[in-house]
Amino acid sequence: MSPKITEVQVRDIRFPTSLDMDGSDSLNLGDYSATYVTVHTDTGLTGNGLTFTNGRGNEIVVAAVHALKHHVIGRRLAEITGNLSGFFRDLTVDNQLRWLGPEKGILHMATGALINGVWDLWAKREGKPMWKHLADMSPEQIVNAIDFTYITDALTPDEALAILKSREDGKEEREAEMLRDGFPAYTTSTGWLGYSDDKVRRLCRQAMSDGWTAFKMKVGRNLEDNIRRAALMREEIGSNRLLMMDANQCWDVGEAIDQMKALAVFDPWWIEEPTSPDDVLGHAAIQRAITPIRVATGEVVQNRVIFKQMLQANAIRFLQVDSCRMGGVNEVLPVLLMAAKFGVPVCPHAGGVGLCEYVQHISIFDYIAIGASLEDRVCEYVDHLHEHFVDPCIVKNARYIAPTRPGYSITIKPESLDAYEFPGGRVWRKLQGVA
Amino acid sequence: MSPKITEVQVRDIRFPTSLDMDGSDSLNLGDYSATYVTVHTDTGLTGNGLTFTNGRGNEIVVAAVHALKHHVIGRRLAEITGNLSGFFRDLTVDNQLRWLGPEKGILHMATGALINGVWDLWAKREGKPMWKHLADMSPEQIVNAIDFTYITDALTPDEALAILKSREDGKEEREAEMLRDGFPAYTTSTGWLGYSDDKVRRLCRQAMSDGWTAFKMKVGRNLEDNIRRAALMREEIGSNRLLMMDANQCWDVGEAIDQMKALAVFDPWWIEEPTSPDDVLGHAAIQRAITPIRVATGEVVQNRVIFKQMLQANAIRFLQVDSCRMGGVNEVLPVLLMAAKFGVPVCPHAGGVGLCEYVQHISIFDYIAIGASLEDRVCEYVDHLHEHFVDPCIVKNARYIAPTRPGYSITIKPESLDAYEFPGGRVWRKLQGVA
Repeated sequence: MSPKITEVQVRDIRFPTSLDMDGSDSLNLGDYSATYVTVHTDTGLTGNGLTFTNGRGNEIVVAAVHALKHHVIGRRLAEITGNLSGFFRDLTVDNQLRWLGPEKGILHMATGALINGVWDLWAKREGKPMWKHLADMSPEQIVNAIDFTYITDALTPDEALAILKSREDGKEEREAEMLRDGFPAYTTSTGWLGYSDDKVRRLCRQAMSDGWTAFKMKVGRNLEDNIRRAALMREEIGSNRLLMMDANQCWDVGEAIDQMKALAVFDPWWIEEPTSPDDVLGHAAIQRAITPIRVATGEVVQNRVIFKQMLQANAIRFLQVDSCRMGGVNEVLPVLLMAAKFGVPVCPHAGGVGLCEYVQHISIFDYIAIGASLEDRVCEYVDHLHEHFVDPCIVKNARYIAPTRPGYSITIKPESLDAYEFPGGRVWRKLQGVA
Repeated sequence: MSPKITEVQVRDIRFPTSLDMDGSDSLNLGDYSATYVTVHTDTGLTGNGLTFTNGRGNEIVVAAVHALKHHVIGRRLAEITGNLSGFFRDLTVDNQLRWLGPEKGILHMATGALINGVWDLWAKREGKPMWKHLADMSPEQIVNAIDFTYITDALTPDEALAILKSREDGKEEREAEMLRDGFPAYTTSTGWLGYSDDKVRRLCRQAMSDGWTAFKMKVGRNLEDNIRRAALMREEIGSNRLLMMDANQCWDVGEAIDQMKALAVFDPWWIEEPTSPDDVLGHAAIQRAITPIRVATGEVVQNRVIFKQMLQANAIRFLQVDSCRMGGVNEVLPVLLMAAKFGVPVCPHAGGVGLCEYVQHISIFDYIAIGASLEDRVCEYVDHLHEHFVDPCIVKNARYIAPTRPGYSITIKPESLDAYEFPGGRVWRKLQGVA
């Protein structure tokens, strides 16, 4: 018998990262946090999923998982996996909760945590790492996992199937390559906005000696500051390494164009999140104005409908899918397929807590089964908080090594869960001066 | 001294409307609910705001208000009203909570409830109904209330000021007209999807005898059903009254075009929410394909950035702003101004609980100070749940009569709050069989 889901447990886990200005950018300064889900079954097998948040408000996402969990509890895994698009719609078209989205923000992030928890359970049951589990699914199974609602004007089920079938040649070679060499990564650990110039220089040198060849820096609203920091980064990494810039949505459309024209001299490979993640037409206007610099976005794109339009409008040259802001694996799949159809490389968003663990699977699966190229592909890497994971990602020579343990690599160590639970865990009690 | 905000109280209020299929459409069947905010001050004066939800999940929005309320508590009203755009940004650019939006979904709805609560407090302090309080603000004060972030490519502060100044002529006459005649309304009470044909016929006849001249019907995915119901409605209301159709997002882009081509024979004045509220390009494609039928949307549009694009892309011919899905009055203002700039009439969304009470103020203010025309303007009206309000909207001869009591008309009677509080109120205890 297929395992029956008996309970969904949700925990509010927070790491006090704001104390060190890690993760500081033009708009965010947070405590990296996770709404952490454990899907329990009657066989004892469990699945884990999380969605990443930035500290305060994590409790709201926890409440949202509780509001959604009745769609999961009591069902057998095989019943869910036999109708994955139906499962997705059970969660996203709930006739009362839907009003609170639809398919965006807190409710959709909670949906992503739950859906990823079920996929982790499934991969563990199959005894495969998530990327391998996905790569072993037939084109028909992948297509059946997708809810095509609102995207058929850009990608039909038949087109999706044709893309997947056209990539079947060479899958084995690409899988062997991933196991042998891994997937190319870039580092964001060097250029946080809150770091001093000295710290940035030191981190750049360290990163180069570790083999990194692509570096991301944060930019803000002050152009002089951006110029000074870009010159510093470029001086450290030289002209042959890649420099990416990340504005974290701090500009209006005209401001983004002006800033990037002034920063073009530093040869940025991409400008990430130049403006509101909701502004498809704005991104398109920026891309037209600043070509050949390329526009990238995705970490805060709410769902497949916005990504669809970003592609239709030629608004982006890199698609930075996130693993848990949208509706989990089910919604990542159509985004990867639309990117392939429109010829835009996928360079996933990572960092935070658990995002690197998640996205390595997405990038490796994308390479094996959909994207089928490494050209212009790099997956983000940030060296934070990996020590809390049972199966932490491993990066060697600036490449993600394909994970081999079953599941989605997102299970957190029990002792870390207990220590960082908010507000009652040991770490938080100590920070708040409670014995 | 200006009142100091001492406390923000939040209550989970739900009305069991799903029992009668009121409000049923292609995707929603809910219990009309409110996340109900009371802003208390040290003078005893209070302000109320609510955001409308559809039942389950209301507790998540309540949690979101609690997460945001520290931005309000402890401040004096005059400090807030002296820097309204700054106040808006305190709530929307919180450096940890922002990750959960930004400016969309649950977090933004909670923001709207809080912001409207402060505006209600302010209008009550001034002793004016909200529409009059807004109409009496100077063009400069209105512009200073707006956060122009992400919209300067469509509307600059100077342009906004010019629009407001250009409408100063005739303001007094339009105000007198509103007090005398009221603002034109249309009714949605006749055509809910869950109603029987007989009930629809009966409601149409009743509505015509009450003086209604514009009627909205719900449509779904079944074309035959839509045709049958449209024929019935058209037969009842005749060819000279306006018939609007509302798909509540149930179609993909191609499907919307096919359906509306088939339904064109019934001469619909508009098609509302033909597809995903996030799909700017999709709405534009539908509008191009089905002209002269006009596309309308807005009740689920998440923020000013999506409305901006809907206007830039010529995607809609009616803008249906909602009073509490976005960031309250502060965000309604730039949307009204952008609509005026692009020449698109504003026909606000109402219904639910409290939305009619809210939007009458928006429509009347828009007419007096921004839109300055009644051509193609109708404000939605649904005859539900008004009896619970201290100052319920009054509709006579299919027109909203301008309210005269101070505030935003959104204060619910204490006895209704107690009876419908979820889950402990009398009504819910009875429904759940608890003594």
